[in-house]
Amino acid sequence: MTDASKFTCVSPIDYRYDSPELGEYLSEEAFTEYKLRAEIALVEALTAREICPLEARNEIVDAKWQVTVKEVYEEEDRNHHDIRALVNCIQRRVSDRAKPYVHMSATSFDISDTANAARYKDVMFDVFLPKLNQLEKALIELSLREANTAQIGRTHGQHAVPITFGFAIALYVERIGGCIVEIRKAAEQIVGKFSGAVGAYNASSLFFDDPKAFEAEVLQGMGLFPAGHSTQIVPPESRTRLFNEICILASVLANLADDMRHLQRSEIGEVGEPFEKDQVGSSTMPQKQNPINFENVKSMWKIVYGLQQTMLLDQISEHQRDLTNSASGRTYVEIIGYTYSMVKRMIRVMSRITVNKQNMECNLASQGEAILSEPLYIILASLGHPDAHEKVRMLNQRAYAGEDNFVKLIHSDKELAPYIARMSDEQRVILSDPHKYTGISAEAAKSTATRWKKKLRRIER
Amino acid sequence: MTDASKFTCVSPIDYRYDSPELGEYLSEEAFTEYKLRAEIALVEALTAREICPLEARNEIVDAKWQVTVKEVYEEEDRNHHDIRALVNCIQRRVSDRAKPYVHMSATSFDISDTANAARYKDVMFDVFLPKLNQLEKALIELSLREANTAQIGRTHGQHAVPITFGFAIALYVERIGGCIVEIRKAAEQIVGKFSGAVGAYNASSLFFDDPKAFEAEVLQGMGLFPAGHSTQIVPPESRTRLFNEICILASVLANLADDMRHLQRSEIGEVGEPFEKDQVGSSTMPQKQNPINFENVKSMWKIVYGLQQTMLLDQISEHQRDLTNSASGRTYVEIIGYTYSMVKRMIRVMSRITVNKQNMECNLASQGEAILSEPLYIILASLGHPDAHEKVRMLNQRAYAGEDNFVKLIHSDKELAPYIARMSDEQRVILSDPHKYTGISAEAAKSTATRWKKKLRRIER
Amino acid sequence: MTDASKFTCVSPIDYRYDSPELGEYLSEEAFTEYKLRAEIALVEALTAREICPLEARNEIVDAKWQVTVKEVYEEEDRNHHDIRALVNCIQRRVSDRAKPYVHMSATSFDISDTANAARYKDVMFDVFLPKLNQLEKALIELSLREANTAQIGRTHGQHAVPITFGFAIALYVERIGGCIVEIRKAAEQIVGKFSGAVGAYNASSLFFDDPKAFEAEVLQGMGLFPAGHSTQIVPPESRTRLFNEICILASVLANLADDMRHLQRSEIGEVGEPFEKDQVGSSTMPQKQNPINFENVKSMWKIVYGLQQTMLLDQISEHQRDLTNSASGRTYVEIIGYTYSMVKRMIRVMSRITVNKQNMECNLASQGEAILSEPLYIILASLGHPDAHEKVRMLNQRAYAGEDNFVKLIHSDKELAPYIARMSDEQRVILSDPHKYTGISAEAAKSTATRWKKKLRRIER
Amino acid sequence: MTDASKFTCVSPIDYRYDSPELGEYLSEEAFTEYKLRAEIALVEALTAREICPLEARNEIVDAKWQVTVKEVYEEEDRNHHDIRALVNCIQRRVSDRAKPYVHMSATSFDISDTANAARYKDVMFDVFLPKLNQLEKALIELSLREANTAQIGRTHGQHAVPITFGFAIALYVERIGGCIVEIRKAAEQIVGKFSGAVGAYNASSLFFDDPKAFEAEVLQGMGLFPAGHSTQIVPPESRTRLFNEICILASVLANLADDMRHLQRSEIGEVGEPFEKDQVGSSTMPQKQNPINFENVKSMWKIVYGLQQTMLLDQISEHQRDLTNSASGRTYVEIIGYTYSMVKRMIRVMSRITVNKQNMECNLASQGEAILSEPLYIILASLGHPDAHEKVRMLNQRAYAGEDNFVKLIHSDKELAPYIARMSDEQRVILSDPHKYTGISAEAAKSTATRWKKKLRRIER
Repeated sequence: MTDASKFTCVSPIDYRYDSPELGEYLSEEAFTEYKLRAEIALVEALTAREICPLEARNEIVDAKWQVTVKEVYEEEDRNHHDIRALVNCIQRRVSDRAKPYVHMSATSFDISDTANAARYKDVMFDVFLPKLNQLEKALIELSLREANTAQIGRTHGQHAVPITFGFAIALYVERIGGCIVEIRKAAEQIVGKFSGAVGAYNASSLFFDDPKAFEAEVLQGMGLFPAGHSTQIVPPESRTRLFNEICILASVLANLADDMRHLQRSEIGEVGEPFEKDQVGSSTMPQKQNPINFENVKSMWKIVYGLQQTMLLDQISEHQRDLTNSASGRTYVEIIGYTYSMVKRMIRVMSRITVNKQNMECNLASQGEAILSEPLYIILASLGHPDAHEKVRMLNQRAYAGEDNFVKLIHSDKELAPYIARMSDEQRVILSDPHKYTGISAEAAKSTATRWKKKLRRIER
Repeated sequence: MTDASKFTCVSPIDYRYDSPELGEYLSEEAFTEYKLRAEIALVEALTAREICPLEARNEIVDAKWQVTVKEVYEEEDRNHHDIRALVNCIQRRVSDRAKPYVHMSATSFDISDTANAARYKDVMFDVFLPKLNQLEKALIELSLREANTAQIGRTHGQHAVPITFGFAIALYVERIGGCIVEIRKAAEQIVGKFSGAVGAYNASSLFFDDPKAFEAEVLQGMGLFPAGHSTQIVPPESRTRLFNEICILASVLANLADDMRHLQRSEIGEVGEPFEKDQVGSSTMPQKQNPINFENVKSMWKIVYGLQQTMLLDQISEHQRDLTNSASGRTYVEIIGYTYSMVKRMIRVMSRITVNKQNMECNLASQGEAILSEPLYIILASLGHPDAHEKVRMLNQRAYAGEDNFVKLIHSDKELAPYIARMSDEQRVILSDPHKYTGISAEAAKSTATRWKKKLRRIER
Repeated sequence: MTDASKFTCVSPIDYRYDSPELGEYLSEEAFTEYKLRAEIALVEALTAREICPLEARNEIVDAKWQVTVKEVYEEEDRNHHDIRALVNCIQRRVSDRAKPYVHMSATSFDISDTANAARYKDVMFDVFLPKLNQLEKALIELSLREANTAQIGRTHGQHAVPITFGFAIALYVERIGGCIVEIRKAAEQIVGKFSGAVGAYNASSLFFDDPKAFEAEVLQGMGLFPAGHSTQIVPPESRTRLFNEICILASVLANLADDMRHLQRSEIGEVGEPFEKDQVGSSTMPQKQNPINFENVKSMWKIVYGLQQTMLLDQISEHQRDLTNSASGRTYVEIIGYTYSMVKRMIRVMSRITVNKQNMECNLASQGEAILSEPLYIILASLGHPDAHEKVRMLNQRAYAGEDNFVKLIHSDKELAPYIARMSDEQRVILSDPHKYTGISAEAAKSTATRWKKKLRRIER
Repeated sequence: MTDASKFTCVSPIDYRYDSPELGEYLSEEAFTEYKLRAEIALVEALTAREICPLEARNEIVDAKWQVTVKEVYEEEDRNHHDIRALVNCIQRRVSDRAKPYVHMSATSFDISDTANAARYKDVMFDVFLPKLNQLEKALIELSLREANTAQIGRTHGQHAVPITFGFAIALYVERIGGCIVEIRKAAEQIVGKFSGAVGAYNASSLFFDDPKAFEAEVLQGMGLFPAGHSTQIVPPESRTRLFNEICILASVLANLADDMRHLQRSEIGEVGEPFEKDQVGSSTMPQKQNPINFENVKSMWKIVYGLQQTMLLDQISEHQRDLTNSASGRTYVEIIGYTYSMVKRMIRVMSRITVNKQNMECNLASQGEAILSEPLYIILASLGHPDAHEKVRMLNQRAYAGEDNFVKLIHSDKELAPYIARMSDEQRVILSDPHKYTGISAEAAKSTATRWKKKLRRIER
């Protein structure tokens, strides 16, 4: 589409969030191309079985290259049937001798469902997953780089106990890593079909004693396995599982975006989106540097969430199929398109994210020793204090009320004295410096990152 | 978009279910045009208040006509801010003297939210509602025409008691009529805003003592009222209510489509989609005449259902706004686009639907006298039979088991004899002919249809 | 339910978020009671028309008081039909003479749909709306009290320009106020039906020449109007609209909860949930004071959001009804129950919320003069600066890069000198103190609050 | 809960669709029990490491058996923290010496998330999956029994080409079989955690050099593996995947229910729900036998669909967790409860479903030879007819228009004569009798059923 014409589009995926590299899989042009390929896979299988003569096969393959989506649509305008229109466009280009081998024994959805399964699978392995691996690697690097950068951990938006920033990122290395594994599995398992009008091989069994074997041969030409049992259409579950996994990924990305968005709040300021020199933050407040990329990712998640609902509703189809998934089925590719756009944007922004260590340090220190409450309570308990949690809670309330600072209250408390006396040096160290209380954040960040680094290497081989 | 280029699109709304007549409201081009109009409405209000000199106003209005969406996008590529890009495109065309009046005191979303509200409202009143009225009229006519056509009523997919086909259609006259009223109301109440970066008129109060009055003046230029209280953005509820109503309509249309689809089942055959002479029903089963239009409407409902979810998620925006509705907010227009496509298709097919009275008659008769069970039970009860429902249920089971036909069983039953003796002539008539037992179907069909005919006339005036 | 038995429940609405005051509307017991009332409304209407003798009426009314839900369920276990079971339970308590008047000419859903419509309407006006008014009043008071408390406005989680806290709250006064109006309207318009098995008054027209008038008489006894046109069931739209409005409210409450949650973040600390003396914030971090009530409200919104999906799916029912809304229809009351719980919790916490003015002040000041960028740019533009936005953006970048503070950079800038010279005193004041730049926040807060105070008074009268 | 008290419940899962056999996994009582077990698993692991003395361990285990959910709730009413309340209830029953070992180094969600993961896993393997296997077996038997029962295949609700009823059922053997495999996998992979307040083992690393090993020991006691990387909470994906799979199953069941519902339509009458002798079909139409069980299953799917939305929204949690999944997370068990109820109902009705072979035969024959269109077109094409599809479509239109019956038109058509002459005997047989044109339905039904029979046997071993 030329730049100018795309602004007549209604869907943002076509004028604003379009990814040219996905066009050959997700566009209507691409769908037609895949349907043509499925017709050719059929002819090739017929030829291999010596049913279709080689010359006829050649004619049909030649014809395939000449058919355009525009022509197919014009034919459909006449006959109101998309696949029959496609078949007509091929047939009119070949001799009468070759004509019968076009679409032989196939029903529309042998072609459409197979074409869709193939392009979903291809786009995942050719484009989507490599890009996702790239994001995973960026996060691995970030996680390793910031493995020791102390940061306050936050639960309920409240300061909890310290972690490191690399540890926080490693969570996403783990979650996205899991998505990579599951998406791969689901994409590998997506199935096609070539079982005819109601799935019982009625037509193909007129020609073959082993119509299921023939089905497998046709589908092999598309890089697919057949469904174990189908109707006019492929049972939706293999597809549902793939799209569910993509949607799970979209949620993980949205979660990462939310985390970063909030860390970029004016009062927190721990991270920052990379900002272009000429970029304008606000049309009216020239000082602002907004987390627009993270906001965009969160916003796209809402689109994907809605698209998932449509997809899920299509799991039900009456008898050997109703056709109430015809229009809706065309929107599944948008799930891929939007989520891919989220991945790309995340690569762009996470690989250059600004980490403000000074603010991290400052926020970590801001609650003073209150974050020592947990280790204090736990050490007290371990030393036999019978009501440690309540004791520490009361000390906190007194500190909060301004009586004195928390550490001083600890050391001046008579009840605590005997416990303090029995503490180990290591325990005393932690109680003197909140920064020491990051648990195994650094090691965990590194080990998670390294584990996925290796896994990714295996996957990519 | 030229025919050929549109097939590079990913969303079906852009290559298959596109409605050219909606382009000037729903496309990205249209959105830019409406944003430009909002900028002009501002300048006009400034001019009316004699803040902006007439010459400056003229310059700006002239400039507006020259700005293209493509240019705005190119500018945005540079500065990463859509509204600032738009403003720059205007400003670069006017003299330094006029420049300050462009976007004066406005924040981005004064422009964007207002532009969106205005195009939603305009498209509803200009195109959508007139088309919906057309569908309503087609259903009114069908309802009147078939007011007396007896049909078996169906509950649970089972034959219940008779109605007329016109009565069944009148239900949709009523439900769609209600949608027309509610959509109109919601579209009238959609609001805009011109209250600045956080909704407190910070900027405009630098110029005006009455910034709320000034807001009302700007919005009047767009045919809108202002929100009672806003932030950087318009409170989402007026928009949510409009889209909720459109989605309610989509469900009503899907329900009608389901009803027709099932009445078109091979075994039922009471209605038929109009079928083109050259139309192909199946790529492999040449005899089929499938309810593809009704299926399409049902399928689009699933898309609209998903889009509604996205829209609903956008009701939450942090503080004076987060930006997580930026991408998702661009999909709302698809709700309008798809539902409009459903309406158009329904007009096409419902205004020429084939009613097979022979099959209706035949289906109505098929259960024999069993459908007399209800009136029999009710008349018996009214004549004082203490356990009429159970009595009739037992008679039915005996008839079902093949003992004799139902009417004969009634008349040979000794327990029933005294009740039958006391029945009125009218009651006897109904018990002799199921066709008479249509209640007030015909009158109700006519009265509902006529009521809405009048209402529509009032609305359209 | 006794305290102990409720913990055998699975749904949190039954063991944790139960509101006893809703029990007589939402519980299964309540549903049975309302169905019994509908049967009585029918008998009363029959008596008023002198069809049912007064003695029979008295017998039936007496019987009604003796029927228990347990007994109805036991009868249903036997006959597998809920309404027939209810009818049997009444009939077995009355004389043979009275029996025929029980359920006379009614179909199950004349009773069930009417009972549901009545209890939805009653619970809204009796309990839900009064409670919601109470929340609205608490917010009005808060808004008035804090109308002048300066707070930084936030967009994208970034400091924008100042508002007041009362202004921020007034947004919710406005949004919730709008919900009150719309929920009332929708609750008033919810309809019942008494039109028989397929909606055509087949049975009732055996008795009455004016079955629609009789329907209106029965429904009047339940405080309802009849649907304009029904089938076996009431057209779902009046109900969908009511529940959509409740869900819109739930989103507004979730939005308020999110705002408060984030304002309670450790780094922001502008508001705080009231905290009980004995309350424990964390099982392991004794110092924490978590926004658990706001989190709970947000969490319940997710439940309501899911329930809305179920409710929306029920809008489609085949022909004169399928029964696929039987189980799902029983969950609608949960929408009311959870949203009511949200309202109650919000009253509890918002009426005692802690406002930390010191932190508000401190946050407002934290970005220094950068928030003056907007007024500076706007004033410059109004004074004829041809590129004010860009100019201010560059000044900001220089300040951000540490060259000097923003105000100093302004005053030492040669290009700006002539503009500064021409500024009014009022403009100079604003440029010297960000606190002055709150627009009309205070007035707007007061006027919105006062407007709704009056409206509420009118509503409650 | 006693029979009577349950009718004070609001959620249908608690008064109408409750499954007592799930109570010990899904009820609030069960949740408390599992949390207590998690506390004990911790103490056991501490004891194994010889940190907790055996006597203290014994005290705590004894105490565990005495704690009641009611007591915990009463404690929570006081301290507003559910896990701390649970801990207090244990601690108050043990000596001061034992107290410190209760909840030692744990955070609330170490307990809660682990308890939930364990009960989800247990209920799946103990109750849900065995029941689902039972349904699968019933369908396998039905599929084998009806493998040769000819039935018309239906696409678009229109007669397509013949299959067998066993073949139609085998589709569900395949789809549900796939669900069994995937649900098992997902249930096995659900993970717990014991990594402390922010997932970095801050507390446990005070005691152990190998806190991850200790975590694994605690979780082993609950039959779980730990998450690879967690925060305060377990990463949601393993849970999301399990529930997604359950929801996929719910959709498959809904699809089966829809198919059966429609086959039970009055005009089709091919199957029937088993009907009790005393069962009432309609309160007013005594003759009706409604597909109430299938309707119920479809209706519950809508509930599950809504619950899935809630569950999906919980995948996002800010930083080391927000708490906005606290209330919503309590509804996940309802997904299990409702879907289980669907499974049970399906077993009940599918294992005794009535197959009306006469109606199947009659429906199959009803379209006469038109269903021969497909084989005719395909054979013609294979014999070299250049435009077979169009030719057959025209013949059909002529037959439909009443010119003659389809077979006669074939045989009297001059153009077709040479092709007919060249047909094989087998091809002629099919063209003489539609019943022969069932493809490999029978074999496919048997092979699918047998394949899953074997797989199930392996799974159950």
